[in-house]
Amino acid sequence: MTQANADLAQLIRTIPDFPKPGIQFRDITTLLLDAKGFHASIERLAASAPDDFDLIAGIEARGFIFSSAMATQTAKGLVLIRKDGKLPGATIGVDYALEYGTDRVVMHEDACVPGQKVLLVDDLIATGGTALAAVRLLRQAGAEVVGASFVIDLPDLGGADKLRAAGVPVTTLVAFEGD
Amino acid sequence: MTQANADLAQLIRTIPDFPKPGIQFRDITTLLLDAKGFHASIERLAASAPDDFDLIAGIEARGFIFSSAMATQTAKGLVLIRKDGKLPGATIGVDYALEYGTDRVVMHEDACVPGQKVLLVDDLIATGGTALAAVRLLRQAGAEVVGASFVIDLPDLGGADKLRAAGVPVTTLVAFEGD
Repeated sequence: MTQANADLAQLIRTIPDFPKPGIQFRDITTLLLDAKGFHASIERLAASAPDDFDLIAGIEARGFIFSSAMATQTAKGLVLIRKDGKLPGATIGVDYALEYGTDRVVMHEDACVPGQKVLLVDDLIATGGTALAAVRLLRQAGAEVVGASFVIDLPDLGGADKLRAAGVPVTTLVAFEGD
Repeated sequence: MTQANADLAQLIRTIPDFPKPGIQFRDITTLLLDAKGFHASIERLAASAPDDFDLIAGIEARGFIFSSAMATQTAKGLVLIRKDGKLPGATIGVDYALEYGTDRVVMHEDACVPGQKVLLVDDLIATGGTALAAVRLLRQAGAEVVGASFVIDLPDLGGADKLRAAGVPVTTLVAFEGD
């Protein structure tokens, strides 16, 4: 396929066998170092965001980078979705399955006003496990998830399709084959 | 003392006894949720940044939020300073002492071009242990650390003074007494 946003794709470095053998890690740190590329990625995600939303949600830790920049670009507030034990206030959480075992994402229980329209932002969508858990969490808080934006899609892993099947419009900028 | 940026200070929530008894945790998530307050904090940090710098450095994980927004605001690239084991490429690192034991910050060894002027950004400066380690790390990579910007200062813990003593100009927006 023709790579969309090829200028951005070439700024993303591939590191073989990280974090374990067989994984081709798509490394966004080289994109971040390039001011023009980094800001173009934010502008293009913002341009394809829904017209009407109230709040950006960002997933720890690389997701904080793109969600915060998106919040700055679109003049919205930011809600943090974190691993358990990091947020100081009362939280609500959602458990989700990993290849081995489970993980959990949490947010402050008072972070969203019910009915608020939230745009989820992360660096990469792979199997979609974390993103789907984040959607469930935001909905549990009463938010309407009006979209999800990612710099990188790994379409062979099907996460973006799962999010769409869950009723969440998805925007991605660049796609890489494989996992 | 009169609180500088009192409008921002009142958006920062204090959570007692987190992460352990006796600590008054200054919680920036309530500031982030407030679009006007969040963006005012970024504009004021950017306005007080050095005139001339090449790159923003952000410290995991809350530091990613403010450093990324600052990079967007000032049209600079962003270099990530992370805990060990999270960056996929070859890294350099600095160990630093904690109250009990040690911790380590790392960055990609090729992230900075020697001579680049870097502005360090984090959410909060307390004892300054992590920030000083980040300064040593950036200098080890050949960067010139031309400033350090924090939303919150806990001046009783002396971190900002230690950074200044290490030759790094420091900007902070709001100060809270105690630890």
